[in-house]
Amino acid sequence: MKILIKNIEEIHSPFSGVKKNQFILIEDQIIKKIDSMSQLDQNAGYDYSVDAEGKIVLPGFINTHTHAAMTLMRGYADDMPLDKWLQNKIWPFEGEMSAEDIYWGTALAVMEMIKTGTTTFSDMYFAVDRVAQIVEESGIRAVLAEGLIEENDGQEGLDKALKFALDYNDAAEGRITTMLAPHAPYTCGRNYLEQIRELALENNLPVHIHLSESKKEVKDSLVSHQSSPVKYLADFDFFDNHVLAAHCVHLEPGDLEILKKNKIQIAHNPMSNAKLANGIAPIKKYLENEINVSLGTDGVSSNNSLDMLKEAKMASYLQKIKYEDPTAVDTTSILEISTVNGARALAIDQLGLIEEGCQADLQLINIKNNSFYYPHHNILSNLFYAADSRSVETVIAAGEILMENNELKTLDQEKIYYEAEKRAFKIARDLA
Amino acid sequence: MKILIKNIEEIHSPFSGVKKNQFILIEDQIIKKIDSMSQLDQNAGYDYSVDAEGKIVLPGFINTHTHAAMTLMRGYADDMPLDKWLQNKIWPFEGEMSAEDIYWGTALAVMEMIKTGTTTFSDMYFAVDRVAQIVEESGIRAVLAEGLIEENDGQEGLDKALKFALDYNDAAEGRITTMLAPHAPYTCGRNYLEQIRELALENNLPVHIHLSESKKEVKDSLVSHQSSPVKYLADFDFFDNHVLAAHCVHLEPGDLEILKKNKIQIAHNPMSNAKLANGIAPIKKYLENEINVSLGTDGVSSNNSLDMLKEAKMASYLQKIKYEDPTAVDTTSILEISTVNGARALAIDQLGLIEEGCQADLQLINIKNNSFYYPHHNILSNLFYAADSRSVETVIAAGEILMENNELKTLDQEKIYYEAEKRAFKIARDLA
Repeated sequence: MKILIKNIEEIHSPFSGVKKNQFILIEDQIIKKIDSMSQLDQNAGYDYSVDAEGKIVLPGFINTHTHAAMTLMRGYADDMPLDKWLQNKIWPFEGEMSAEDIYWGTALAVMEMIKTGTTTFSDMYFAVDRVAQIVEESGIRAVLAEGLIEENDGQEGLDKALKFALDYNDAAEGRITTMLAPHAPYTCGRNYLEQIRELALENNLPVHIHLSESKKEVKDSLVSHQSSPVKYLADFDFFDNHVLAAHCVHLEPGDLEILKKNKIQIAHNPMSNAKLANGIAPIKKYLENEINVSLGTDGVSSNNSLDMLKEAKMASYLQKIKYEDPTAVDTTSILEISTVNGARALAIDQLGLIEEGCQADLQLINIKNNSFYYPHHNILSNLFYAADSRSVETVIAAGEILMENNELKTLDQEKIYYEAEKRAFKIARDLA
Repeated sequence: MKILIKNIEEIHSPFSGVKKNQFILIEDQIIKKIDSMSQLDQNAGYDYSVDAEGKIVLPGFINTHTHAAMTLMRGYADDMPLDKWLQNKIWPFEGEMSAEDIYWGTALAVMEMIKTGTTTFSDMYFAVDRVAQIVEESGIRAVLAEGLIEENDGQEGLDKALKFALDYNDAAEGRITTMLAPHAPYTCGRNYLEQIRELALENNLPVHIHLSESKKEVKDSLVSHQSSPVKYLADFDFFDNHVLAAHCVHLEPGDLEILKKNKIQIAHNPMSNAKLANGIAPIKKYLENEINVSLGTDGVSSNNSLDMLKEAKMASYLQKIKYEDPTAVDTTSILEISTVNGARALAIDQLGLIEEGCQADLQLINIKNNSFYYPHHNILSNLFYAADSRSVETVIAAGEILMENNELKTLDQEKIYYEAEKRAFKIARDLA
């Protein structure tokens, strides 16, 4: 399949500035050619053409940390103290979720991600083969891992998680890759974590883990292990793997150096860290130290959406507050954090850039149809600081059109709304 | 004109919880009747009917602090140090703006506010008779004041500002009220401020002022006046008036008590305070002390939109961070802050509530047409924490429909885009 995108007003890709009045030719999953419209051979063969007049092209957003099926809990528990939120609401709800519920919750999530310009997400949850199913069906790209809590999952869970990781790596025509995902240093013991470390190294699998999310976690670790969560893991060489660490909000002295030396990949979740009152991660400092920072939404229950444009603005504005510095994390930096840095964090090559030879994962954004783009002094600023995701009109992942002019091509929206609502309400009623 | 709004899924109004399956009858500018659909007399006379099936009704948002015409500077200056931002970009741009530019910049702002559910705004800017003109034409409600900087405006400016305030109070069928607006304690000398205090008292005009916005302002005041900006103003009884104070981010000991005792009305602008790296105002503390807190967007150049839904979420999430308390400023509180508290702050009675006898200023929000509302566990949480303003479909101010099913009724969108863009670009080019 050859797709031509023509009359593109501007292409914004990390590191390469702005290109005006361009076309893009996609062949199979790859961006084959990018050039100015004056160079377009009108007779060049293509199967389908998309007119991007009045639109800009950006890489699809890459959401590096989520628990997609938690969409079923959107609005189920808000404005609560953390312990009551978890113990009285989130965990009981999760306890009632069937694999079928997880399928439909993830379907709602994937639909929302496509509609808001995300083309890749990294998920840590349960019944992950059903998560893989909706990824396969929807055409989105995903990095999947079964979340492991030692007390609940034990050896059997680990075996199952490994089997999934090996079976599904490179599934869905290469759109699915996999990781191992011990939930956190405080929910998995050292032997369990060491075993995961070995399996990850042996099988060349990256590791996805929550790390230093709350003050309490760090404090407890200092008591239990006489060291911070970061140093505790480093001490048994857990970071020999490619590690995607979600949050990293609270650092102890020496932690930054460990993260840097071990090339830890940060998944920054500013909205979740705010909603749960965990604080603001030191992203500006990470970037200054050349630690790779990517962006995640976390689960919907602590966000409450999967909208990367909201997340990107929050990331920038919170850093400005934290460092009392209005120049912190500017729009150039936000573009990288929400796209190519995500690809690096997920260990996927040739992704997150609009360049020849890269994966054809991209979004077309209409910059004419709402006031947030007027005047057009600075399109990236208008996009990240003023607009919302309604202007995301067309989304392509792995060379397939998933949404065109706001119309979903692979998912049945009404069916997903119906099933998600029905299942979420049933669980809430059963627990009431 | 009698308007019937029927089949309303839910009405959310501050203090009165949720009412399901309702109708609202509007007569002239006023909400005449609210009752459940079963009580609707199908033969009751009305001139126009709006079907609100699948929609909720909320009071229109009240934006208590903005400089509307600054839309022309959207994206013109971002991610810059405050002094360079002001001196090299904002002030030179403002210096080039004609009264006609201000008219069109305000038109773009008013259009954006209507589309995002705002029915009242409080503006401090220049050429304010032209601001009044677009308020008159658009049907929105506004509280207007000419911003006064002593060095620029002097006695002549003050005379003009007073004349405007007296001439335009209660203009546009009562939709316009007025204030006096000394810019800030650091741009107006004590004599000038005392004169404004007297004129405000004499003429029963509220006062709109920037107060304690930045650390630098407070520090400078401590040096110049040996007291904080708040205490400095209190010492010459400036607060004998109804005072709307924008920002109040940084308090010195004793300031809180002064604000409380004098019933100061706070206009909280969390997005602007974040973008300009001024910090997070102590809203939770204000509310605990029964100080009235309302919400503002400030000018677009420090935001970069006039979208009150974005502002409301930011207000809540920033308080959760500041106080390390996930329960801070919950959705009930956000609803009050963004509606009825604004009415109080602007000294307008019977506004910001969906109650019989109140002003017919309201918005219809579609809770079925996008994923952010699924599942419907908690509509207010979905609205404030997950959704964006695309679901605002119909907006009514003072009993007139300004937008119906996303179609603007009083403004010419294409003309406004064209004029705003042309004028903004001309100024930017002239300054380049």
